Amino acid sequence: METEHMQAIALADNISSHTAEAMLLAAESKAIELNVKMNIAIVDIGGNLKAFRRMDGAWLGSIDIACRKARTARLFDMPTGAIGELSQPGGSLFNIEHSNGGLISFPGGLPVVNDHGTVVGAIGVSGSTVEDDRVVAEAAVQAVTEACV
Amino acid sequence: METEHMQAIALADNISSHTAEAMLLAAESKAIELNVKMNIAIVDIGGNLKAFRRMDGAWLGSIDIACRKARTARLFDMPTGAIGELSQPGGSLFNIEHSNGGLISFPGGLPVVNDHGTVVGAIGVSGSTVEDDRVVAEAAVQAVTEACV
Amino acid sequence: METEHMQAIALADNISSHTAEAMLLAAESKAIELNVKMNIAIVDIGGNLKAFRRMDGAWLGSIDIACRKARTARLFDMPTGAIGELSQPGGSLFNIEHSNGGLISFPGGLPVVNDHGTVVGAIGVSGSTVEDDRVVAEAAVQAVTEACV
Amino acid sequence: METEHMQAIALADNISSHTAEAMLLAAESKAIELNVKMNIAIVDIGGNLKAFRRMDGAWLGSIDIACRKARTARLFDMPTGAIGELSQPGGSLFNIEHSNGGLISFPGGLPVVNDHGTVVGAIGVSGSTVEDDRVVAEAAVQAVTEACV
Repeated sequence: METEHMQAIALADNISSHTAEAMLLAAESKAIELNVKMNIAIVDIGGNLKAFRRMDGAWLGSIDIACRKARTARLFDMPTGAIGELSQPGGSLFNIEHSNGGLISFPGGLPVVNDHGTVVGAIGVSGSTVEDDRVVAEAAVQAVTEACV
Repeated sequence: METEHMQAIALADNISSHTAEAMLLAAESKAIELNVKMNIAIVDIGGNLKAFRRMDGAWLGSIDIACRKARTARLFDMPTGAIGELSQPGGSLFNIEHSNGGLISFPGGLPVVNDHGTVVGAIGVSGSTVEDDRVVAEAAVQAVTEACV
Repeated sequence: METEHMQAIALADNISSHTAEAMLLAAESKAIELNVKMNIAIVDIGGNLKAFRRMDGAWLGSIDIACRKARTARLFDMPTGAIGELSQPGGSLFNIEHSNGGLISFPGGLPVVNDHGTVVGAIGVSGSTVEDDRVVAEAAVQAVTEACV
Repeated sequence: METEHMQAIALADNISSHTAEAMLLAAESKAIELNVKMNIAIVDIGGNLKAFRRMDGAWLGSIDIACRKARTARLFDMPTGAIGELSQPGGSLFNIEHSNGGLISFPGGLPVVNDHGTVVGAIGVSGSTVEDDRVVAEAAVQAVTEACV
């Protein structure tokens, strides 16, 4: 059954090609539903690129942003938007974006956590409003980490 | 029919998500046949990343090499190995690898040419010997550019 | 006696491996006490990396930040947080983070000063709140620069 | 017993702080035996820096080389010297050093393989002849991967 299968994915200790493909498909489905064109990047437990897809017509500038969002989310094991809240002028992490060769700190990057609570990778989505980007990333994460009772 | 469908792909004026996906699948099938683990990158007519896949267990260092092979092949509209023959010590393009943020000039990168003879993108494959890399890249290009009468 | 030994360390004109090791241990002890997981970097009088340790489970993105905090603190011989106060929008050092290949200007980096008042190196700590980062860095500096009568 | 302990280290699925520390100590002991001064870098399964130590008086230029050797060995799961044999003028991987932000392809970098045959990290050593560098790296790898019956 689909539900059990997806739960099995979540138990792995890294993001497999199988999981990455499921995430790309879920993200793309949500993007089509929202009528937006996205760049979608998946990184593994080490923050290294595992899979990438650019939908036809999606912004070229979002290739790099999607990859950096995914990497940023894994580097700090949190949604990219959470970092952005702390990196504003006067905030405790002001200008953290200068580290690690350039971070992206607005929404659209999310860590992927397995059933043991370990971060095993992340996804980055870019191509529309940051709200749309975030929604699409969430759809991908949910597809591989939640049992749909 | 599959043959006609693939020919239709080849007529396009850029690499679509559809074409890129067909190339990833063909490359992966050939890699499985050869029992090797590959990183596969596809760039579009502008040399920008369109799709990427890293097979489970493939070298991490080949992420970057696959992407650079694809980009190099599109930047000069020729197989990466052809550049490497000219970039040896004493050769006419000695150290061209320093340009464009870093080229890769050994085999595994191939341009994708449509039915009108226009280069519309490229593929880069890395993860085994350069000979295996080249064979896998060729399988992907053939899948979308040749009618198999 | 421990006290005299530590004072001896402080008299040196550069950060030795011995001193660096003592700093790593003191930082790690404080991190364990605070129940946080840190990246800890030590640079010498030339601002060059002398020692580094990433505690198990610490953020991957803090590798680079810890190293940059240490380097920033030595480059300007002051706590990184002091630079951050001056680099805010409208401040006298606005966007100084763009210099030197990328600075980090929030707390967690501290210079190490010997008994003659000379800066001989610095430490950078990253992995938790900037307040925790600062406290852990201070524990390491105190371990090698203060006689605990 | 020490033997069993070391074997246990080898079974882990990533390089822990404990393992990294044991490697640094074994490398440093061998370096002292050879009367050389080394930079020693350890990266984890994702190729990210886990631990670093520069012996007093070791070359500053070897900080970067040790780090790149460790990273290179993990990126391609082989000794750095093996890459160098293939990257000579006329070789199949000529100028591969331009990839991944800069590789080091002479001896001194070695992958760390656990009991299941999985590469879980790597070490890079730099500070003397490449032969000395290699010998010191080997001592560190042996310390954590071989049972000393």
